[in-house]
Amino acid sequence: MQSGWSVPDSDGTAFTPMVVLELAPDTNEEAIKWLLSRIRDREQNGGVELLLEQTLTGGHDGQKGNPNVFLVGSTLERLLHGAEDVGLFKEFNDGSMRAFTYTNKDNFKDFQGDGDSLLSVAECQYIIKHKLDTLRAKDEANVPGYPKAKLYPGKSIIRRLQSKGILLQVFPLHDKEELKRLSFSWYKKVKFSSSSSFQPLNDIRRYFGEGLALYFGFLEYFTFAMLPMALIGIPYYLWDWEDYDKYVLFAVFNLVWSTVFLEVWKRSSASLAYSWGTLSRKKAFEEPRAGFHGVLGFNPVTGRKEPVYPNSKRQLKIYLLSVPFVLLCLYLSFYIMMIYFDMEHWALALYEVEPNFWTGLFLFVPSIIYAVVIEVLNLLYRYAAEFLTDWENHRLESSYQNHLVLKVLVFNFFNCFASLFYIAFVMQDMVLLRQSLATLLITSQILNQIMEAFLPYWLQRRRNKKAHKRLVKVMGDRELPLPEQAQLESDMSTYLGTFDDYLEQFLLFGYVSLFSCVYPLAAVLVVLNNITEVYSDAFKMCHVFKRPFAEPASNIGVWQLAFETMSVIAVVTNCALIGLSPQMKAYFLESDTQLILLVVCVEHILLAFKFILAFVIPDVPKQIQIKLARLEFESLEVLKKKKILETSESPNTDK
Amino acid sequence: MQSGWSVPDSDGTAFTPMVVLELAPDTNEEAIKWLLSRIRDREQNGGVELLLEQTLTGGHDGQKGNPNVFLVGSTLERLLHGAEDVGLFKEFNDGSMRAFTYTNKDNFKDFQGDGDSLLSVAECQYIIKHKLDTLRAKDEANVPGYPKAKLYPGKSIIRRLQSKGILLQVFPLHDKEELKRLSFSWYKKVKFSSSSSFQPLNDIRRYFGEGLALYFGFLEYFTFAMLPMALIGIPYYLWDWEDYDKYVLFAVFNLVWSTVFLEVWKRSSASLAYSWGTLSRKKAFEEPRAGFHGVLGFNPVTGRKEPVYPNSKRQLKIYLLSVPFVLLCLYLSFYIMMIYFDMEHWALALYEVEPNFWTGLFLFVPSIIYAVVIEVLNLLYRYAAEFLTDWENHRLESSYQNHLVLKVLVFNFFNCFASLFYIAFVMQDMVLLRQSLATLLITSQILNQIMEAFLPYWLQRRRNKKAHKRLVKVMGDRELPLPEQAQLESDMSTYLGTFDDYLEQFLLFGYVSLFSCVYPLAAVLVVLNNITEVYSDAFKMCHVFKRPFAEPASNIGVWQLAFETMSVIAVVTNCALIGLSPQMKAYFLESDTQLILLVVCVEHILLAFKFILAFVIPDVPKQIQIKLARLEFESLEVLKKKKILETSESPNTDK
Repeated sequence: MQSGWSVPDSDGTAFTPMVVLELAPDTNEEAIKWLLSRIRDREQNGGVELLLEQTLTGGHDGQKGNPNVFLVGSTLERLLHGAEDVGLFKEFNDGSMRAFTYTNKDNFKDFQGDGDSLLSVAECQYIIKHKLDTLRAKDEANVPGYPKAKLYPGKSIIRRLQSKGILLQVFPLHDKEELKRLSFSWYKKVKFSSSSSFQPLNDIRRYFGEGLALYFGFLEYFTFAMLPMALIGIPYYLWDWEDYDKYVLFAVFNLVWSTVFLEVWKRSSASLAYSWGTLSRKKAFEEPRAGFHGVLGFNPVTGRKEPVYPNSKRQLKIYLLSVPFVLLCLYLSFYIMMIYFDMEHWALALYEVEPNFWTGLFLFVPSIIYAVVIEVLNLLYRYAAEFLTDWENHRLESSYQNHLVLKVLVFNFFNCFASLFYIAFVMQDMVLLRQSLATLLITSQILNQIMEAFLPYWLQRRRNKKAHKRLVKVMGDRELPLPEQAQLESDMSTYLGTFDDYLEQFLLFGYVSLFSCVYPLAAVLVVLNNITEVYSDAFKMCHVFKRPFAEPASNIGVWQLAFETMSVIAVVTNCALIGLSPQMKAYFLESDTQLILLVVCVEHILLAFKFILAFVIPDVPKQIQIKLARLEFESLEVLKKKKILETSESPNTDK
Repeated sequence: MQSGWSVPDSDGTAFTPMVVLELAPDTNEEAIKWLLSRIRDREQNGGVELLLEQTLTGGHDGQKGNPNVFLVGSTLERLLHGAEDVGLFKEFNDGSMRAFTYTNKDNFKDFQGDGDSLLSVAECQYIIKHKLDTLRAKDEANVPGYPKAKLYPGKSIIRRLQSKGILLQVFPLHDKEELKRLSFSWYKKVKFSSSSSFQPLNDIRRYFGEGLALYFGFLEYFTFAMLPMALIGIPYYLWDWEDYDKYVLFAVFNLVWSTVFLEVWKRSSASLAYSWGTLSRKKAFEEPRAGFHGVLGFNPVTGRKEPVYPNSKRQLKIYLLSVPFVLLCLYLSFYIMMIYFDMEHWALALYEVEPNFWTGLFLFVPSIIYAVVIEVLNLLYRYAAEFLTDWENHRLESSYQNHLVLKVLVFNFFNCFASLFYIAFVMQDMVLLRQSLATLLITSQILNQIMEAFLPYWLQRRRNKKAHKRLVKVMGDRELPLPEQAQLESDMSTYLGTFDDYLEQFLLFGYVSLFSCVYPLAAVLVVLNNITEVYSDAFKMCHVFKRPFAEPASNIGVWQLAFETMSVIAVVTNCALIGLSPQMKAYFLESDTQLILLVVCVEHILLAFKFILAFVIPDVPKQIQIKLARLEFESLEVLKKKKILETSESPNTDK
């Protein structure tokens, strides 16, 4: 084995392993041999020309690990070709972002010497994953040694191995050195830098990819965007301002502000995505999910043999089972909410009979129980939603994710806010509303921090402690050799994507915006929560989870829509809340009608204003629009010049 | 001169003239010579290689026409190259639409023999116009003979000649034969064809281009979409159903239906645009408008020398002058409306004092006067809006158009509907509302038909009669020779684009949808109007106006948004109208509050439903999505294969 990060391939080429391929321990030898040869094979023969090495561990402590763990790497040249295949954009000599091409490689800014600095490790890992995913069966009818693992020409071998449980997991390796540097600049150093961001977003992107970097960018942006709300909210809380004209001002500010900051985020994210090269990158054709099944047919787009599943059948499943199921869950959740109110009532009665410290404390118990129950329900529902969405049999991972997100989003929204809506608009009890809001917000924040960071970290520590202790005993203070490192990481939990992190922010945004005029302190709590959130999320990415594959993303996707929808709902709720306030009612003593009409009018004007604002603020900053236009213009010009040359070289041939 | 449509160029090549270039009669000889040589020059020398011929007329009747009228044509080869330059999409051998390339020309379906049938005349004319527009100055400092007509390298010569008034007009020639065929199948033949459309949309597109074909497609679609509303509306009118539960049903049907049909139109227009090759066509870089002025600088996109005008200055103009001006006009319009109501009041008083036939008839006078005044105001405002938008100095024609459309749209909307809103929600007089709606609708329909079709036609006839009579005397029954044809067409009015036609439909849609529950007959009137509208519009395109240049379009652009906005406003007005109805009020005798809350609730649900519907219905039909995806996939595959070949041909060169 060579210096730290380099292992030899079977043909003796030394390479840097980047991705780990873990097959089931009892995998048939024949299948392994076949798979390895297919992966190593030249591209003309249908292979992907990657380098492979089996880890040989388990000698140190007597306890045998899984022997079928393979380290995958690639030559630099293959990676550069791969970068062109997956359509990476890189900074050109002139400062613009262009699609990387191998023949033009010397004109790219970061391509120096042997070109080592052009691709980040995350990008290399992404390229290797892409290559593995597009390794296709030729004329094999099944995986050798597994007659049931059927193959047909064009089927992705990796997907089939995954769906049959032969391939346990594919994951990229952490890079201890880089990770140390990254985590230092990320959360171990207090800094007030001159850069636009407090987090090293570019380093995060280089290490974890664009998807995650955008999440952390959004988290930071969102936290800063909450600051004005928090600052304005503090005096309301401190001096107990109950004037509703002041509240009206606060609410209107919040509503306009949330529209503005969501629009401006689109611009920031476009700027980030441009500088990362993902803004104009075209998506490659998506492979079907590993779990997708159907009758063998032909894909209308690629013409390849592929399972085909009628869309009408999927729609039937969605409308006849998934939708009713979601509605049923919502009803159940509503039922539990009513029980909560009974409990609340009962606690209040107890307090009124015997008002002392304990019964006073007891007043908070129903809210806390309810908050815990909600969290548990959300968790259970999540499993059901995953099962259902799986059963709907979506062809693409992206469509699967969208349907899952929608299901989970609706339920979580209802679960978190239904009781608040009920208190606000049915019971019309503003004091209870404020109290419930505070309890829910604080409980869910604490629970989230525990569930998200401490729990996995603790489990992880417990699991690793023994193994690590043994290793340290053997190795002393030396750095862990690569095979052991791979084995260790393969046992770490898998990061399931940014979904839960965004969901949490989405719900926090709901607490702040939906009832902002009742509990101005919410923004303060969210800001405080998010400051620790940045640290705990950063920590969990670096130390709790397996490194995830980079996800090229140019925006935060469906979440932009979700946040915007929330801000629209917030206009309605805030207007209604202000309309219900006793102070407002005092102004319009003679007629409720006038008050309601006024509130409805104001609401419509605010909504119209929101839509106009969203329409007027361009989604992409002018500077970047110009850069994109210049690129397009130049490529057209080059084409035209080439054509004129061709015509002038062969005049009168076609006349 | 050769057979009918062919004239020789100066070097003797016979060509079919397609476009007419009319210079001012007193143009300097030197400038003409220079322009002609620049147009004829080879592309390598910065020319556009078109063919030209001066018309030599005025001999027949002694009256001298403008001698500086030139016929422009091109060789087929140049046109085919041009088709590639402007990015035309054509049907490939396999039935898909692909970007036309000259080298691949034999694989396109309609390319037979010499390729004459591939390009329609409209496309040829569009290509010639594109070539003329991109004829750029080299090192000339000014137009020869015109020291004030400054030029600089890269400036479009045609634009400069236009802005200095040297070039009077550029327009494509009508094709009498094709026009006869088109007009026969369009409006002279009654047909119940099996095709999806009653109009020959594909022929219209071949003759007038995609923009106009989409307008006629939309006009027909919209008329059919109104049919269900009209059919349901008739019994309401005939039996005078005044039950508001029935009206509620009608209104809800209208609201949902208008959302659905606007969404479905997007799909139809995508299908049309795909089959015409404009759906995936990329827009070429837009030249600045002829009237755009500024300090000479560099365009950040092209790097070319070009006038530069700071955007901030334009924004200042817009917000400090244009917006206040529009608001002032709206105020003026409001003031006139109040006068109308006074007149109305006065006429009513007169009728009550002395109720006879004449005073009864007099009741309609204020409405009619008001409708006429509105039309006149709209016309005056239109000129002001054009002046203002010109003064805002937009760089692009498209941005100029958008700002103009917005200005005109807002004013027209206010002018047409303000009185109805006032009657409905301030006066709350449903009988007057119905009467005003009917008067306004019918008057504006009649006025429109007169202004749009009969007036230009009549003016046109009068103007041509003399000239034509003289010609017939000389020529007998023979067909008009080309130069005379060109002179005759150059005197025809210029079609100013589809703006007014769409605007009319937009306002009609407003009459139908905004107050549909008050006057169910509106849809019937609109359907009747539109049936004649199709014929009169078709007639005016064929015989009243100069042929317009084809406008490649893939959708109806800003009008889709305008119609959707109208349908959102319609939800609000209809809900409010139903809430105001006496029957509804009778249901909720005990409390207005409950009624209003219910109405607001229903309104919000309907709005939410609209947005969800718009979100759920995909904008492009599945079939076409697949075709587009297949194209993209194939081009990626070709690239990949090419690369593999390259690598295998030169192995180990870079390792």
